[in-house]
Amino acid sequence: MNKQRELVKKDNMAEWYQNVIEKADLAEHSPVKGCMTIKPYGYAIWELIRNELDILIKKHGAKNMSFPLFIPYSYLSREKDHVEGFSPEIAVVTHAGGKKLQEPLVVRPTSETIIHESMRRWIYSYKDLPLKLNQWCNVVRWEKHPRLFLRTSEFQWQEGHTAHATEQEARQEVESMVELYYNFIKDVLAIPTVKGQKSEKEKFAGAVDSYSVEALMPDNKAVQMGTIHYLGLNFSKIADVKFVDESGAENFVYMTSWGVSTRLIGALIMTHGDDKGLVLPPKVAPVQIVIVPIGNTLETAQRLFNELNNSGFRVELDDRQDVRPGAKYFENEMRGIPVRIEIGEREIENNEIQCVNRVTGKRTVLSLGSDYIQSIKDLLQEIQSTLLKNATERMRNSVVEAKTKEEFSDLIENQKGFIKACWCDEKECEVSIKDKTGANSRNLPFAENEKELTDCTCVWCGKKAKKIAYFCKAY
Amino acid sequence: MNKQRELVKKDNMAEWYQNVIEKADLAEHSPVKGCMTIKPYGYAIWELIRNELDILIKKHGAKNMSFPLFIPYSYLSREKDHVEGFSPEIAVVTHAGGKKLQEPLVVRPTSETIIHESMRRWIYSYKDLPLKLNQWCNVVRWEKHPRLFLRTSEFQWQEGHTAHATEQEARQEVESMVELYYNFIKDVLAIPTVKGQKSEKEKFAGAVDSYSVEALMPDNKAVQMGTIHYLGLNFSKIADVKFVDESGAENFVYMTSWGVSTRLIGALIMTHGDDKGLVLPPKVAPVQIVIVPIGNTLETAQRLFNELNNSGFRVELDDRQDVRPGAKYFENEMRGIPVRIEIGEREIENNEIQCVNRVTGKRTVLSLGSDYIQSIKDLLQEIQSTLLKNATERMRNSVVEAKTKEEFSDLIENQKGFIKACWCDEKECEVSIKDKTGANSRNLPFAENEKELTDCTCVWCGKKAKKIAYFCKAY
Repeated sequence: MNKQRELVKKDNMAEWYQNVIEKADLAEHSPVKGCMTIKPYGYAIWELIRNELDILIKKHGAKNMSFPLFIPYSYLSREKDHVEGFSPEIAVVTHAGGKKLQEPLVVRPTSETIIHESMRRWIYSYKDLPLKLNQWCNVVRWEKHPRLFLRTSEFQWQEGHTAHATEQEARQEVESMVELYYNFIKDVLAIPTVKGQKSEKEKFAGAVDSYSVEALMPDNKAVQMGTIHYLGLNFSKIADVKFVDESGAENFVYMTSWGVSTRLIGALIMTHGDDKGLVLPPKVAPVQIVIVPIGNTLETAQRLFNELNNSGFRVELDDRQDVRPGAKYFENEMRGIPVRIEIGEREIENNEIQCVNRVTGKRTVLSLGSDYIQSIKDLLQEIQSTLLKNATERMRNSVVEAKTKEEFSDLIENQKGFIKACWCDEKECEVSIKDKTGANSRNLPFAENEKELTDCTCVWCGKKAKKIAYFCKAY
Repeated sequence: MNKQRELVKKDNMAEWYQNVIEKADLAEHSPVKGCMTIKPYGYAIWELIRNELDILIKKHGAKNMSFPLFIPYSYLSREKDHVEGFSPEIAVVTHAGGKKLQEPLVVRPTSETIIHESMRRWIYSYKDLPLKLNQWCNVVRWEKHPRLFLRTSEFQWQEGHTAHATEQEARQEVESMVELYYNFIKDVLAIPTVKGQKSEKEKFAGAVDSYSVEALMPDNKAVQMGTIHYLGLNFSKIADVKFVDESGAENFVYMTSWGVSTRLIGALIMTHGDDKGLVLPPKVAPVQIVIVPIGNTLETAQRLFNELNNSGFRVELDDRQDVRPGAKYFENEMRGIPVRIEIGEREIENNEIQCVNRVTGKRTVLSLGSDYIQSIKDLLQEIQSTLLKNATERMRNSVVEAKTKEEFSDLIENQKGFIKACWCDEKECEVSIKDKTGANSRNLPFAENEKELTDCTCVWCGKKAKKIAYFCKAY
C-alpha cells in the first residue's frame, strides 16, 4: 500500500503536502520554472477566500482598482532599501512591440512605487484623505526553490495601499488591518495566528515598521499569513505625495500597505489535512456536502440535492455509475469535503439519511421528516469550530520557551514550535541566529510584549533583552 | 462654457469619450506607455460585468483556473500563424532573478499555447472530454496607439479554452458561446451586436474559423465585443493533445477558444453616454440610485437609503453638506447613475419622493405609502430596456447597402454605419479595401448569409460574390 504510506502526514510533511495537492487536484508546477497552474478545485478555494476577504476589505473602506502590471525600473530604484530588497527577485521586460525598450520594465513584485505615483496626482488636500485602495492581481518574485502555493515565482494576492494625514491615523490603519487579517484567517480559514511586529531584519524593504500574523504548521514550521506595513513618510517623500492641511500648510502623507496571497491555501492544506487527504473548513470548501446514493436511491438523492442546493449549500451529487460507494468515499475524503451524506435503500425506508463528519468520522442519522436542513447547517458550523479548536490547541501546545542558547538551539533543531525567548532585537544578532540555526524571528508578539521587560538577557548574544520574540523555521 | 462644449457627443466623439472617462473618474493612462490605471468607479463596473458573465460561463460548464503569466517563447512559435500574428505585439522578459534567462519568456498575449500544453497531460480518454476551462486575467499586447479601455498594452479579460472529441461538438461549442456573448451583451450591457464569421484576413492567428459579435458606435465605427474561435486540430496537432475514443483508437481533440475584455467598458461608454456624461445600464451601474436630500430632510433620506439598500439596490446617499443640490445633480448625471431620488421638505409633507430618470430626464412622483420599492425596481428595468431599444434602433438605421464600388467608398468615407455588400470573401480583395478605405470587413453576418447568394458580384473587385459582409472602420 505504497499510496497510503505517502499520505501519513507526520512522517514526511513535505511529501504528504505534495501528494495531497496532486491527489486532490489543486495545482501543479507549470512548464515555466517557478510558476504554478492552479487547477479548478484549487482555484475554487481561492475564489471563496477572495470573495470573503473582499467583502471585509470593502467594509473597511478600501476601494478596488487596477494598476499596471509593469513598473518602470527607475520607480523601483527611488527607494534605496526597496530596490535592494527586491532586485534579486525581479523579472525584467527589455523588449516589447518588436523593439528594445528605452527603459526596462519590471514585472511588479509589489506595487507601492507605481501606486504612489498615482497618489501624488490624486491627493490635493486633507479632504482626499484617508485614501484607501486595494487590488487583486498577480505579482512576480523570482523563486529559486518553488513550492506550490507557498513559494512561487508568480502568485495571486491582494495589496492594499493607504494614505493618511497623520501618523496616528496611519498607525491606526495598520492596527485595524492586523485585526482584520487575524479575524479573517481565524473565522474563515479556521487557522489561529500570532500577531506581532516583524524584526528589523525581517521587515518589508522600505517600511518603517512591519507587522505580521504568523501561523504554525503541524511540523512546527511557520507560515507568514499576512503582512501589514507602516511606511511612514519613506515613500511619500520619494514620490512627493503631499496634501494641504486645514491650516493651508503642505505636508507629506503617511502611508501603509498590506497583503495576503495564495500561500494562505498552502497553510490551509497543512493545517487541517490528515492521512486521508485534504480537509477543508466549510466556509472555503467548494463542495460542502457530497451526496452518495447507494443502490436504487438516485431519485431521493436528486431531490435532496435540489433541496440543499436551493438552501444555499455548495452541494454535489456523486451519481457516477461506474464507481463503487467505497471508492467514492475515498475520493471525496481526499478532496476534503466536510460532510458526506449516504442514502441507501434502508435509509429511504426509514425516511432518513446518514451524515458523515469528515473531521471526526462520526456518523449522524437525520430524519428527513425533521428540520434536517438546520441540522446540516449546525453540523457544518460544528466542523468549522472543531477545526479551529484543534488547530488552536496544537499551536498553544507548541509555544516553548528557551532560557539559554543551548536550549534555544536544541528546540530549533528539533522543530519544537514557536520558540519564545528574550531577545536583544538587533539585526546582527538575528543574522547570526539565522546562520547558525536556520531560524528567523517570526515576530515580536503583541501579547507577549505588553509589559516592559526587566532583568532579561538576550537568549542568543547575552546582551540586555528588549523584546520577547518567537523564533522558528519558516516556509 | 468651454466644459459643456467638450461634452457634446456628436461633435467630436474622441474628445467627448476622453472627457467622460476623465470627468466620471473611470480610468487614466498610466506612466507606463500604453497601459492604463482603472480607477475605483471604472473598476466597479468591471467587477459587475465580470460577476454577471462569470455566472453564465460557469453555467455553461467551464471551470475557472489560473495559468502562468509567462509563456516560453518556443511554445508561442510552434504554431506558425500564431507566432507571426502575435510577434509584433509581445513583451519579452529576458532577465529574471538577477540572471539572463536561457529562454526568453513572453508575457502572455493569449494563453492557447500554455493551456494546450496542460491539456496534453490532463486528457487521456473520451471520458475527460469535453474539457472547458476559463481564466480571468491580464494579458499584454503592445499597443502603439493606446485608447483607454478600447486599446491598451495590458488589459483584463476572460479567456475560455475547450477540447472536444468531435468537430461537431466543437462547432456546437462555438455556436453556443456566440449566443452566450450576444445575449450577455444585449441583456446586461444593453448593446445590440451583429453575430457572424470573421473573414480570412481578420480571423485569429492560428484558428480555422473565427466568429465575432460586433457593435456599432454612435459615430458609426465598430467595436469587436467578443471573439470565438474554432481551432480545429491546428493546435492539438502541434501540442500533441490526443484522447482514446470508445473504440480504443487515439485521436486529436478539436479545440475552441473565446474571450471578452475590458474594451466592453469602452463600448458601454460610447453607446449610452450623452452630453451630460456617462449613462449606465442599471445592471452594471455601481450606483443604481442616488438620493439627494434637500433642506432639512436628511433623516428621511437616511431611512430611505436603508430601505433601498436592504432591498438589494446599489444605492448612495449624497449627503455632502458643502455641495448644492444642483451641483450634485450635475455630478451624479456625469457619473451615469440611472435614478436620482430628490427629497425636499414639501415631499416629506406629502410623504412622497421624486424620481428622475437619467435617460429621459422624466420625473415620477412616488408615494412612500405605496409599494414604492417595486416602482423603483420597475423604473430601473424600464431604463435598462430603453437603453437597449435606443441602441437597437440606432444600429438598425445604420446598416446601409452598397451596390457599387463608388457607393461603397462613399459610404465608408462618410462613416454611414455598417456597410452591407456582396463580397468575394478573398484576402487580397480585403487588403485592397483596407488600403484604399481604411475599413475592414467586421464579419459575415449569420442572418444575412442564411441563403446561398446568386447573381451577385463583389462590390469591390467585381468577381462572383460568395458572401454578404458588413464593412466598417473600427476601434
